[in-house]
Amino acid sequence: MVKITEGLGENKPFSHNELFESGYIRQYGKDATATAFLLGGIGTGNVSLGSRGEFRDWEIFNHPGKGATLPNTYFSIWAQAEGKEPVARILESKINPPHTHAHGYSPGTAAGLPRLENSKLVGKYPFVRVVFEDNSLPVDVELEAFTPFIPLNPMDSGIPGAYLTYKVKNTSNVPVEVTIAGSIINPIGATFDQKGNLQTQKCSQNWNQFIEEEDFSGLFLRSYKFPEVHREFGNIALTTTNKKTTYKRSWLRGPWFDHLHEFWDDFSKNGLFTDLEYTSPSKDGSTDTGTLGVRESILPGEIKEFSFFLTWYFPNRLNGWSDAFSVKEKGRETVENYYTNHFDSAWSVAEYMVKNRKRLIQQSRTFEDALFSSSLPSYVIDAIASNITVLRSTTCFWLKDGRFLGYEGCHDDWGCCDGNCTHVWNYAQTLAFLFPTLEQNMRETEFLEEVDQDGKMNFRAVQMFDCEWTFGENPAEAAADGQMGAIMRVYREWKLSGDDTFLKKLWPAMKNALKYALLQWDTDEDLVLDGKQHNTYDIEFYGPNPLTGVFFLGALRVAEEVASYFGESDNASMYREVFEKSSKRLDELLWNGEYYIQLLDDVNQHKYQHGTGCLSDQLLGQQLAHLFDLGYLLPEDHVKKAVYSIYKHNFKTDFSNHANPQRTYVLNDEKGLLLCSWPNGGRPTFPFVYSDEVWTGIEYQVATHLIYEGFITEGLSIVKAIRERHDGIRRNPWNEVECGHHYARSMASWGLLIALSGFTFDMTKNELSFKPRINEEDFSTFWSTGKAWGTFQQKKNTDTGEWEVSIDVLYGDATGLTVHACDKNWEVVSAAR
Amino acid sequence: MVKITEGLGENKPFSHNELFESGYIRQYGKDATATAFLLGGIGTGNVSLGSRGEFRDWEIFNHPGKGATLPNTYFSIWAQAEGKEPVARILESKINPPHTHAHGYSPGTAAGLPRLENSKLVGKYPFVRVVFEDNSLPVDVELEAFTPFIPLNPMDSGIPGAYLTYKVKNTSNVPVEVTIAGSIINPIGATFDQKGNLQTQKCSQNWNQFIEEEDFSGLFLRSYKFPEVHREFGNIALTTTNKKTTYKRSWLRGPWFDHLHEFWDDFSKNGLFTDLEYTSPSKDGSTDTGTLGVRESILPGEIKEFSFFLTWYFPNRLNGWSDAFSVKEKGRETVENYYTNHFDSAWSVAEYMVKNRKRLIQQSRTFEDALFSSSLPSYVIDAIASNITVLRSTTCFWLKDGRFLGYEGCHDDWGCCDGNCTHVWNYAQTLAFLFPTLEQNMRETEFLEEVDQDGKMNFRAVQMFDCEWTFGENPAEAAADGQMGAIMRVYREWKLSGDDTFLKKLWPAMKNALKYALLQWDTDEDLVLDGKQHNTYDIEFYGPNPLTGVFFLGALRVAEEVASYFGESDNASMYREVFEKSSKRLDELLWNGEYYIQLLDDVNQHKYQHGTGCLSDQLLGQQLAHLFDLGYLLPEDHVKKAVYSIYKHNFKTDFSNHANPQRTYVLNDEKGLLLCSWPNGGRPTFPFVYSDEVWTGIEYQVATHLIYEGFITEGLSIVKAIRERHDGIRRNPWNEVECGHHYARSMASWGLLIALSGFTFDMTKNELSFKPRINEEDFSTFWSTGKAWGTFQQKKNTDTGEWEVSIDVLYGDATGLTVHACDKNWEVVSAAR
Repeated sequence: MVKITEGLGENKPFSHNELFESGYIRQYGKDATATAFLLGGIGTGNVSLGSRGEFRDWEIFNHPGKGATLPNTYFSIWAQAEGKEPVARILESKINPPHTHAHGYSPGTAAGLPRLENSKLVGKYPFVRVVFEDNSLPVDVELEAFTPFIPLNPMDSGIPGAYLTYKVKNTSNVPVEVTIAGSIINPIGATFDQKGNLQTQKCSQNWNQFIEEEDFSGLFLRSYKFPEVHREFGNIALTTTNKKTTYKRSWLRGPWFDHLHEFWDDFSKNGLFTDLEYTSPSKDGSTDTGTLGVRESILPGEIKEFSFFLTWYFPNRLNGWSDAFSVKEKGRETVENYYTNHFDSAWSVAEYMVKNRKRLIQQSRTFEDALFSSSLPSYVIDAIASNITVLRSTTCFWLKDGRFLGYEGCHDDWGCCDGNCTHVWNYAQTLAFLFPTLEQNMRETEFLEEVDQDGKMNFRAVQMFDCEWTFGENPAEAAADGQMGAIMRVYREWKLSGDDTFLKKLWPAMKNALKYALLQWDTDEDLVLDGKQHNTYDIEFYGPNPLTGVFFLGALRVAEEVASYFGESDNASMYREVFEKSSKRLDELLWNGEYYIQLLDDVNQHKYQHGTGCLSDQLLGQQLAHLFDLGYLLPEDHVKKAVYSIYKHNFKTDFSNHANPQRTYVLNDEKGLLLCSWPNGGRPTFPFVYSDEVWTGIEYQVATHLIYEGFITEGLSIVKAIRERHDGIRRNPWNEVECGHHYARSMASWGLLIALSGFTFDMTKNELSFKPRINEEDFSTFWSTGKAWGTFQQKKNTDTGEWEVSIDVLYGDATGLTVHACDKNWEVVSAAR
Repeated sequence: MVKITEGLGENKPFSHNELFESGYIRQYGKDATATAFLLGGIGTGNVSLGSRGEFRDWEIFNHPGKGATLPNTYFSIWAQAEGKEPVARILESKINPPHTHAHGYSPGTAAGLPRLENSKLVGKYPFVRVVFEDNSLPVDVELEAFTPFIPLNPMDSGIPGAYLTYKVKNTSNVPVEVTIAGSIINPIGATFDQKGNLQTQKCSQNWNQFIEEEDFSGLFLRSYKFPEVHREFGNIALTTTNKKTTYKRSWLRGPWFDHLHEFWDDFSKNGLFTDLEYTSPSKDGSTDTGTLGVRESILPGEIKEFSFFLTWYFPNRLNGWSDAFSVKEKGRETVENYYTNHFDSAWSVAEYMVKNRKRLIQQSRTFEDALFSSSLPSYVIDAIASNITVLRSTTCFWLKDGRFLGYEGCHDDWGCCDGNCTHVWNYAQTLAFLFPTLEQNMRETEFLEEVDQDGKMNFRAVQMFDCEWTFGENPAEAAADGQMGAIMRVYREWKLSGDDTFLKKLWPAMKNALKYALLQWDTDEDLVLDGKQHNTYDIEFYGPNPLTGVFFLGALRVAEEVASYFGESDNASMYREVFEKSSKRLDELLWNGEYYIQLLDDVNQHKYQHGTGCLSDQLLGQQLAHLFDLGYLLPEDHVKKAVYSIYKHNFKTDFSNHANPQRTYVLNDEKGLLLCSWPNGGRPTFPFVYSDEVWTGIEYQVATHLIYEGFITEGLSIVKAIRERHDGIRRNPWNEVECGHHYARSMASWGLLIALSGFTFDMTKNELSFKPRINEEDFSTFWSTGKAWGTFQQKKNTDTGEWEVSIDVLYGDATGLTVHACDKNWEVVSAAR
């Protein structure tokens, strides 16, 4: 092992304890207004829970909706201790300032109704809890909410709904009668304005029904206005398995604020609702709000659960990425969501959730426990778990035919940008390790549809929507980093799944795409890319440069391995030879003694280069090679020194004096890793357009790489800095933003788990191995492959010095699996499922 | 004097010291994000200064713009101490969380550029100071900003511009070179989206010029796209009287973020700008940002001023209140602002501000000093001074022909609601006492244009825009409170001005409008109004009720006084007789022993009544009668007891348990006065639609009335509660919201000054009197009439027991004025101006 003598030096913002502490979990107070925990499944859209217990950001309508609110939509509680006056409260904690609306808070917010004193939110993906505090109530209340999440089971992780369980404990010494009631406006046909306010002018024929089934009952919110194929068609259900229900299908239809007057007077009197017996749906321009209440008698000290199911069904989405990239053919403007394969209404979703409740909770809980019981530092788990959100956010969608698609991220109200962007998804690991079949689908799109006969891969896939990816009038450039990275990622999918058929299908296009690199970008035929190379910074690099150069090496290694596996030994040798020459040449050209630079005679000849700057992504391809167990692509000592230099030069512990004329993701006293810096001068007049920014996706990949190279403290410091910035007050812990919310690149955080546990995987041989890089004498972690997932523990018996290893298979089929750990092989005997 | 034995009792939220302390002024820290101090004149629109020193809420384009931001628009500072490295900073303090934008902060915000550590804002209307703190600079910096404000001089209080003076003190021990530079985007032709982001797609032919005059120089921002009559035509100037300037007319026109790169690199190098020598205006869809810098050398300990003038000229506004109420005739769709009488461009505004600078500053300062040096409690001055803002906000506008118009308040981006609404402006005092000619103009509109031959007054005046005020297909109802209040207010205007001609002109319509009350609303001819009475709660009261009943009494008293003055003795006797009968009857019908109720057999027969509720506005007409020195309208003991009951029942010191299903202006632990409560039961199923709300305008009128009746502590408690709610964090101290920003009703706060100083005025006799109700032994206050303004002091010599009185006339003509104070008459000899 090559040693780097330089230590952490002055760039040491955290103590050892801060960096290595495990087992705690952050709580978000009611003033943490940026906090929003997303409920909802893969490809279903979301609604978020805020730290006041409020439901916010309604994104169930097949597009993002940050800031989108539904009026009249909240839970409320009524409680009466025997012999006492009843108390009625909105089940949210108090509203935070500023209170600056032009017309005060509208009645739709119910801001004028009494609320609970305080609350805190705790999220352990996929579970979230909001604990309320209030002295006026004779009970303690908390809400636990989640949408089932089971790795390797995308269907059950893709349910359009959420379990909402209010747990109420009688803290008084007399029996207490309690009603918990959920109110929700019927939003079908409505739209949101730019400020997120619901506009109901186009609503019509909305109708809320109360239905009782054997196992459950509740409200079914529909509209008769839209035919089933209409993009706005859909329905919502709010149901319960509790037996004693009380409901109001529609709040009072009247002028002014009569509806809220009547609702609250009715509720606060005795906690039971009078249905207003309307017999016709809503008129043009209006809709109804419905309320479903559950009543329970609770004895002193007793805890009762009020179990609600919020489910939705909005089957039809735009048949495309955006208006620009969508199917224009009449009659084909919409496409159905994957969940329509299993459900035909929000009611049927509720039925499924009721019937499979025990299993779905248990398997989701097993995952949560497996992930959060790990011995990794708490904020590392937090980083890994929280960014799972991306794959269930509106950044991704999942069509009826099984196709899984992802934007880069999201605007407040629409996806941005289109097309499974290869260079952004390069960084993402989470989906591949949790739902490998969905990730394989993305590779299939890339290689089977978007590689042309020359080997050029469109870095935005749009053909599935009958569109072509152009830039102005010309075909768009290929992205060198995205194209090479896609080749590398096929290798990951193959090794995780052991699926030779998948690999065989893609292999010709992979070879073609690799050949394209030499044809297109190696203009001087020295086996180092030097042409006009479009890349993830949305500009073109010119000349030899580490970003694309190292990616090319990674792709060559993959090609060598695959060729060899398929018995194409000539090809394998050829790829090996090119790799070795290219690697040597790249190192000679670009190594400056400290890190790899871009080689340009005049850095200002082309705009937007980095030249002698220290690029944080210079070894991204190497990071992927480590994650996929492909070894070093450049001399190990240079790699180690370079990755350390990235940390040294680009990690800043205070941004107060940083001058960044670009977009701003980190500011003031925050810490973060710059995309680039120029420690030795040579900054171009116009450096590449994001050079002064900070992106969590890049921070995670560098942190992961630092850990691979043995710079544990440095890698962890970056991760801790990121998560400190996402403290619920400054930013949402479940939303790492870059060019959009829930940015795909942030799913690089899963790499930390792989690196810290020293996890390698080869399902073609049914082999795993672990070599923890942290807490190795008492280590535990979650692991996953395309076939199974579970936990791994290794512990050194302090008496005997012997290693104790345990591998729990918690889901899937691990028959015949061999695990290498602590210098031994361990056979897995029992297999889950 | 009738004594009420009940004291403040339990409703005593403030200590004596808290209530009576004077001489301090609030500071707003950088985290007081709701803080926005409005610059701009009467009828000119505004731009606000936030507590970080940022320019926000651009409302100079003839409509409101809460949240409207201009990209690239900020000041910056460059400073180099001799022998040291230079420091460059944006002249704002650090940006507050949350940082939750979908794409980070855009370069337009310059969030990525270094800023100053801290700041605080102090506003003493019309002056505002922002004091910056930063250790990295070798200088101290503060900004003083204001738009001239001189009571009785509306023209000089209506200048479309602001003085922005940065005062820089060298705190080092070596000379320092300093540049302060103001950057501003040329927004002509652009629009704002709902989120307040500038959309420049429609910009074209924008052109920034640098012009040097003898006395000043600077940037002149125009567009060649629009002809002078176009609604979007206009221009902006940023100028300085400092001699050493440096500028960049247009930032770099380039892709990506090149503009900000070039700007900041250029500035931070040496604090001097290179103009980019563009010779053509901006292309379609784009505009330019310009920067004007001022350079000064500052010796150790020395203070230098960097004097900027921000001026604008957007002459043409919609010829109407709103799209619904506007002139439709082709060629007449726009109307010019009053300021076009004096200016023909933003450049000419700058010229005027430069030439008249000394006088405008001095006279504005004299007003500020006169108001803020008063011995009234600090928060009372704050309440009085801060709501002056309304008359210079976009709530009001002022047309070329001299017509002064006011909405009720403003949406974020448009006025709301239309038409000098009589029942809302009933409460407002500020304009009448500071710019009486403008207030007279409103009475002229009401009586000379909006009273029909039956005496019905439209409570929204729309005829000046060729429109009719209807409700559905029918003519809209008259508002009983608005119509009677308008009659009372004529009396105020007459007594303040002594202008008999004005009164004579309106008198026939006043009589007619008064007669209408009996014809229309006294259905049983008992001289008490009992018909369907529309009012300020936007609903109709039925039956005898105090709100309209007392207003009717006030109007009768005015009619009696005016008839008597004009020698119509029969009329005077008739009005007196009706007054006495009506007063007696009203008292008999409505007095419940504690306060006045609405008399209804069944409170639910009509929706939206108050019935036995204790209405905060029940004596609004009496409050006006006190302000206008018209005496008691009902038995004094009943009035006293009733107004105390209002306080007792309606003032809440905590809203946590208050259930308000209407709009919400006060919440959580805040204090405030409800519009109504039902201490004895009888709350209607649907009480009037705002009954559970809290409006500052009503709080002020009740506080004023409490003071008149001797309940000083109670009155002050309400005022303190209001201003605590407007603490810059929860709400903007310069924006009291009701049904809109800068709500006209909040100008009721000026009544506090009148009541606390016991000020009466009769310019028909040239007489004033003072009888302070607070600090009477050492009292000082501002006073104003239609002819002059100044200060009044009375002090008891503690040795001799003699009263020392001084009356300073600071502006206007007070020749022959007699002032009654301390039981003596004092002649004013010297007169200002």
